[in-house]
Amino acid sequence: MSGKQRSACPINLALEVLGDRWTLLIVRDMMFAGKRHFREFLGSEEGMSSRTLADRLSSLQQHGIITRHDDPTHGLKTVYRLTAVGVSLLPVVVSLGVWGLENCDADPEAGKTAIQLHKGGPAAIRRLQEQMLSDHVAA
Amino acid sequence: MSGKQRSACPINLALEVLGDRWTLLIVRDMMFAGKRHFREFLGSEEGMSSRTLADRLSSLQQHGIITRHDDPTHGLKTVYRLTAVGVSLLPVVVSLGVWGLENCDADPEAGKTAIQLHKGGPAAIRRLQEQMLSDHVAA
Repeated sequence: MSGKQRSACPINLALEVLGDRWTLLIVRDMMFAGKRHFREFLGSEEGMSSRTLADRLSSLQQHGIITRHDDPTHGLKTVYRLTAVGVSLLPVVVSLGVWGLENCDADPEAGKTAIQLHKGGPAAIRRLQEQMLSDHVAA
Repeated sequence: MSGKQRSACPINLALEVLGDRWTLLIVRDMMFAGKRHFREFLGSEEGMSSRTLADRLSSLQQHGIITRHDDPTHGLKTVYRLTAVGVSLLPVVVSLGVWGLENCDADPEAGKTAIQLHKGGPAAIRRLQEQMLSDHVAA
């Protein structure tokens, strides 16, 4: 993390990196929908513009949350993957999903995984994180 | 929740309400620093402008996360309090704090409560939530 920060409070620092309406949607897409390519993120229901997407991907990479490299199986296609720092965002994403399910007019089907992880507690979250990390190594 | 939403995904809906760099700082101040008055939020280290603060307080109220009423003990002073929906944001705030502590150059002292709650698990979080709610009823 670099640059001028508003305070050293960990909640503030997390919000300086993650606090906008788009960044965590990209992380969500990587965690729960297995998305890895620019066009896949662009196709998400929320309709992110390609300019916003490029900006947020670059910021996520800069903060060590994702990596970006060429996919040898797809020629020029670039592949994005979560790093260990990115995978450690799972509890944040799950807690947002649980709050959204309980307090907004959300689609229960879309929140199924978040609820399962919430019910499974820290052990279930850790298991999925380990799986995500080993998928990345294998990929 | 009202207005045109980007999708019915619970994570997206939560981000539509909370996804900016300021909103959850106000919630943090109410949860961990016992702040209730406009000037108290304005005095936070992050230096929110009074215009941004007024906008976010109004949005939080509109989304049922805080209430706003006159404080009889302070004449014209307005007091803001978390609702049950607001108190239910505690796991989100804690998970952001834990991630900030583990991944940013944060002040460990400022993250002490988040770490304690994280270590205490769901039971510790529930206890603090119950305490917050009973404080509000008593206030």
